[in-house]
Amino acid sequence: MHLQIGNRKMYRTHTCGALRASHINTEVTLSGWVQKVRDKGFMVWVDLRDRYGITQLIFDEERTPKTLLEQAQKLGREFVIQITGTVIERSSKNPNIPTGDIEILVKELIVLNKALLPPFTIEDETDGGEELRMKYRYLDIRRNPVKEKLIFRHKVAQEVRKYLSGEGFIEVETPYLIKSTPEGARDFVVPSRMNEGQFYALPQSPQTFKQLLMVGGMDKYFQLVKCFRDEDLRADRQPEFTQIDCEMAFVEQEDILNTFEGLTRHLLKEINGVEVEKFPRMTFDEAMRRYGNDKPDIRFGMEFGELNDVAQHKDFSIFNDAELVVGIAVPGGNTFTRKDIDGLTDWVKRPQIGAKGLIYVRCNDDGTYKSSVDKFYDETDLAKWAAKTGAKTGDLILILSGETEKVRPQLSTLRMEIAERLGLRKPNEFAPLWVVDFPLLEWDEETNRYHAMHHPFTSPKPEDIKLLDTDPGKVRANAYDLVLNGNEIGGGSIRIHDRKTQALMFDHLGFTPEQAKAQFGFLMNAFEYGAPPHGGIAFGLDRLVAILGGQETIRDFIAFPKNNAGRDVMIDAPSPIDQAQLDELHLQLNIKQ
Amino acid sequence: MHLQIGNRKMYRTHTCGALRASHINTEVTLSGWVQKVRDKGFMVWVDLRDRYGITQLIFDEERTPKTLLEQAQKLGREFVIQITGTVIERSSKNPNIPTGDIEILVKELIVLNKALLPPFTIEDETDGGEELRMKYRYLDIRRNPVKEKLIFRHKVAQEVRKYLSGEGFIEVETPYLIKSTPEGARDFVVPSRMNEGQFYALPQSPQTFKQLLMVGGMDKYFQLVKCFRDEDLRADRQPEFTQIDCEMAFVEQEDILNTFEGLTRHLLKEINGVEVEKFPRMTFDEAMRRYGNDKPDIRFGMEFGELNDVAQHKDFSIFNDAELVVGIAVPGGNTFTRKDIDGLTDWVKRPQIGAKGLIYVRCNDDGTYKSSVDKFYDETDLAKWAAKTGAKTGDLILILSGETEKVRPQLSTLRMEIAERLGLRKPNEFAPLWVVDFPLLEWDEETNRYHAMHHPFTSPKPEDIKLLDTDPGKVRANAYDLVLNGNEIGGGSIRIHDRKTQALMFDHLGFTPEQAKAQFGFLMNAFEYGAPPHGGIAFGLDRLVAILGGQETIRDFIAFPKNNAGRDVMIDAPSPIDQAQLDELHLQLNIKQ
Repeated sequence: MHLQIGNRKMYRTHTCGALRASHINTEVTLSGWVQKVRDKGFMVWVDLRDRYGITQLIFDEERTPKTLLEQAQKLGREFVIQITGTVIERSSKNPNIPTGDIEILVKELIVLNKALLPPFTIEDETDGGEELRMKYRYLDIRRNPVKEKLIFRHKVAQEVRKYLSGEGFIEVETPYLIKSTPEGARDFVVPSRMNEGQFYALPQSPQTFKQLLMVGGMDKYFQLVKCFRDEDLRADRQPEFTQIDCEMAFVEQEDILNTFEGLTRHLLKEINGVEVEKFPRMTFDEAMRRYGNDKPDIRFGMEFGELNDVAQHKDFSIFNDAELVVGIAVPGGNTFTRKDIDGLTDWVKRPQIGAKGLIYVRCNDDGTYKSSVDKFYDETDLAKWAAKTGAKTGDLILILSGETEKVRPQLSTLRMEIAERLGLRKPNEFAPLWVVDFPLLEWDEETNRYHAMHHPFTSPKPEDIKLLDTDPGKVRANAYDLVLNGNEIGGGSIRIHDRKTQALMFDHLGFTPEQAKAQFGFLMNAFEYGAPPHGGIAFGLDRLVAILGGQETIRDFIAFPKNNAGRDVMIDAPSPIDQAQLDELHLQLNIKQ
Repeated sequence: MHLQIGNRKMYRTHTCGALRASHINTEVTLSGWVQKVRDKGFMVWVDLRDRYGITQLIFDEERTPKTLLEQAQKLGREFVIQITGTVIERSSKNPNIPTGDIEILVKELIVLNKALLPPFTIEDETDGGEELRMKYRYLDIRRNPVKEKLIFRHKVAQEVRKYLSGEGFIEVETPYLIKSTPEGARDFVVPSRMNEGQFYALPQSPQTFKQLLMVGGMDKYFQLVKCFRDEDLRADRQPEFTQIDCEMAFVEQEDILNTFEGLTRHLLKEINGVEVEKFPRMTFDEAMRRYGNDKPDIRFGMEFGELNDVAQHKDFSIFNDAELVVGIAVPGGNTFTRKDIDGLTDWVKRPQIGAKGLIYVRCNDDGTYKSSVDKFYDETDLAKWAAKTGAKTGDLILILSGETEKVRPQLSTLRMEIAERLGLRKPNEFAPLWVVDFPLLEWDEETNRYHAMHHPFTSPKPEDIKLLDTDPGKVRANAYDLVLNGNEIGGGSIRIHDRKTQALMFDHLGFTPEQAKAQFGFLMNAFEYGAPPHGGIAFGLDRLVAILGGQETIRDFIAFPKNNAGRDVMIDAPSPIDQAQLDELHLQLNIKQ
C-alpha cells in the first residue's frame, strides 16, 4: 500500500499545495483525492487534491508506460491515490493556483481507496442541497468553503486563547454533568444510573462555576466551552453551542468593557486586518429609541425619527391614536416605484412582523414632498418629518405607528431589510458597539411575572435597587452587550456578590427561600465566605466566528451541526436505546399512544 | 464601595504579588483576602492575599488614625478588603516572599465583604479532610497547592495547543449530543424532548467524528475535549474527563509515533525543563514478559527474570505445577527483616492481588544465598536464579508462581509497591516509553466473546489478518500506547479505512450486519466515498497533567471533581427533577420499591 522512501515507508513527501518551480526535477510522492480527470486518450491530466491545495498530475503516451496511462484513465472522482513522479515545468501555466507552474510526470500510481460517485459535486459551488450536504457532511467538509470556515474557526479560537492568556486569564474546565435549574431555558438532563431517580443537567453556561472560581480567588478566568439549551429550535440555533466564557474579580463594569474591547480589537486586527477606534457606547434606552433594537447595526444610518410632536395635530386618527409615530429615511429611496413600496407594505404586514400599514413620504428632487397621507398633512408638516428623520432630497421616509413596544421592533426589522436590499450591510466593514444599562427584569406575559433579563445573578445598579419594590421594570442592571454589525456577539454583567442582595433577587423572581436554597444554596453559601466583587462576559463563538468571516449563518462554521429538529442527520441521532439501558437508568418510556 | 483613582473608580492599582522595593513611597490600592491578622494592640499587621501573592499591611498607633487601627483589629480571616496606603520599607524583611522587602502603611480600609470562619484553614497544609474540601471546593481553590495545579493545567493545555497548531493541526469541535453505541463502556444518555422516545448519548470519545474528519480531508485534527463514561467508579476515575484527541491522514504508525513523541518532548521541555532522548519502544509481549504490565515504569530496574528453566527440576511441586515461575531482584533488599518479608507476603496474598505465597532468596554479602526454599534448592540453583533476575550481593529476590496471566500482574504490582517504598519512583524523573503491537482482541470472560482491546476501528496488522479465523487472540493490531512513569498517558492506533475490513471486524466482534449498519452505518458508508489511510492517538489530559506535575492523583488537577459515587458534593448533583420535566421528556421513573 505504500512506498519505501529513504529508510522507511511514507505516504507522501509533500502535500498537494507545496510544490513550486524550485522543485522542478525533484522526485516526489503525493497522496490525495482525485478532483478531476481530463482524458485526451494519448494524454491524461489528473488534479490531485488534499487539504493544502491541488497539484496537476500528467500521464502521456510518450513518457508514461501504457499500463500506467490506462490505470490513470480508470480513476474516478474522489478516488484516494498515491503517486510518485518527477516535478516538471508546465507547458501552460495556471497563475490562479500556487502550484500552477509545475506538474508531476507520474511513474507510479497506487489506488489507496476507491470512491463511489459522490452524491454532490466536491466543488466550491456545489449542486448539493442543504439536507444532502448535511447527511454526507464528511464530503461537504472536503469542499473549500466549508473546510476554510473550520480552519478559520480554529484561528479565531487560537487568537482568543492567545490574547486572554497573555492578559493573565486562566482557562479552567468546568464540569458538564451539573445540576438542573428551572430558571432560564430548558435543560438537557442526563439520568444517573448510580443515583436512582436522579439526573444531572448539561450546562446552559458555566455561570455559577465561574462565579465560584472568583470566590476561589482565580481572579481572571476564561473557557471556550460547549453549552446546551433544549429550546424549540429557530433557524440558525443549535442545541449545543460554544461560548467564550469569561469572568474577572475586583472589577467594575469599566474594567470589563476595556478588557473585552481589547480582545475584540485584537481579533479584528489579527483575523480581519481591521483597526477599530474606541468602541462607541449606547444605553439600552437610547438603542431602542434610535434603532428600535438592543443590537443595532450602526454601519449605516436610517436612524429612527420620532414624529409624535409633528404628526398628531391633524385629523389622521391612525397617528393620533398611536403611542408612537416613528419613521426612517431610506437614502435614495425616492427611486422606489409604487410597486416597490406596495411590496414593502405587504412585507411589514405579514404576521411575522405584524404592522398595520406603512406610510411613506417621497422627498422629491425639487424639494417638494409627496406622501401617502397628503389628505391630512401639508408640505410644512412633511418638511418637519424630513427634518426629524434626517431625510434629504431623493430619500424616502417610511413611517409606522402604534404601541411603542410593537412598533419599534417592526420598524427595526424594516430598517434591516432595506439595508440588506440596498447592500448597506457590508460584510467586510465592522462596527462594534457596547450597549449598556440594560433593564434588570423583563415582564413575561406567559408566566405573568418578572424574569431576569440577563440571569438572576446580575447586579442591579445600586442607585436603582429602591425601585425593585415600586417599579421593578425600571430597575437598570450593570449589564452590557457587545454588538457587532447588528448581532449580539457577547453579553455580561457585574454580578451580585453578597447573600442578601442575591436573596432579594430570588425573592423578586418569585423563588421561595426554600427553592432558592435548594437550587442555588451552594452559591449563596459561597457568598458568605468572602466573595469578591466580580463580573464577566460570554461571547457566542459560533456567531462571532461567522461574523468575522463576513457571514451571518453559523451552520457552516460548525463541523457537524444539527438540523432544525435538533437531529444529526449524518449519524442519525437521537435514536432509541435498549430496554436494558432504560432499566439500568431506572426509567421507562411514557409515550402517548 | 471603591475609590476614585485617576479619572475613574478601580478596585486596585496593583496585585498583592507586584510590589517591590522600587515602589517605596508610591501610593497604591490593593484588594484581596485577609490571610492573617497579627494584633499587638499598638500595632496590627495584616497579610493580604490574592491570586498573585501576599502583601503585608501595617497599621500602628503612631502613624494610623485610631478608628482605622480599630477597624483593622476587627478583621477576620478571609474577609475581602480594599486598602489604600503608601509602600514603605519593612523593618524586618522576609526573603521568602517576593514582596518581602516592603509593606503598606494603610490610610484607608474598606471591607468589601465579610467572611464566616472558613470550615478549614486556607493554608498550603490544611486541616480540612477530603470531603469537606470538596464540599467547599471554592475555598479549597484559594489554597496555593490547588490553585497552582489549575494554573499548571492551563499551561500544559496551552503548550499542547501551541505545539499541535504549529505542526499544522486544526482544532475542530465535534458534537456532544451524539448517538449511543453499546460497544465499549456504558454511555451517558440524554433524552430528547423533541424526538419522543429517543436519546442522544454523550461521547465516550470523538472517535467516529475524527475519523469522518479524515474522510473529509481535514488531514490533521486535534481537540481538547470532554469525554464521558458511565462506569462504576474506581478511585481516581471521573465520569467526565478530558482528552487530547488527535488524528492524522496519510500516515503510518511511524508518522504518528514521531509526531506525538515530538509533542511529549515539547511538553517535558517547556513544562518541566527536561530534555528527553528518543523514546524507547517495546512490544506488548516484551513489556508483559519483562515487567508483567503493558505500562511499565522503566525509571528503575527490577525486571522480571523467568525461572522455569532453573526452578522446575527439583521436588518443589508449587513451582513444578506452575505455568510461570518469575522473580525480581530488589536492590539492597537483603536489609529487609523477616518481618518486612512476612509483611510483603501478606500484602501479595490480599484478595486485591491474590498471590498464593511469596518465595524469597537473600543474596548475602559473602556471596552465599539464603532462601525460603532451602529444603529444595541448593546454592547452585539459587545462583542461577540470581543470574536470571540480575540480583547482586545485598539484593533480595522475590518470586511468584502460577498461571502466567495471573502471576505477571501480581508480580508487577509487587514491583511497583516496592519501588514506591524504596523511593525509586522519583516524581521529577521522566521515562517515556512506547508500547507497540498490542493484541487486536481480548477475551471477555463475562460475555464469553472477544472484545476489541482498543476499539472496533483499530486496524489489524495486515500480516495477521489471516489469524482472525484460526487464532483471534494472536492477531496483533497497529495499536500503541505512550507510557510515562508507569502510567498510560496516551493510546491510539492506525484505523481501518475500508468497508470490507471494517465489516469483518464487526463480524468478529459479534455484531450482526444489521447491528453494525444501525450503529455504524454512517462510518461504513463514509469509507465508500474515498477514505484515506489514517490513524491517531488520544491522551488523557487529567492524567498527563498530574504526572507532569509530579503526582499520580488527578483530582486536584480538576477544578470541580466528582466523588467516587459520581456526585458533585458542592452543588449536590445529580438531583431529582420535576414531574413536568419528566413528562416533557416522555419518561417516567421506574424505581424499585
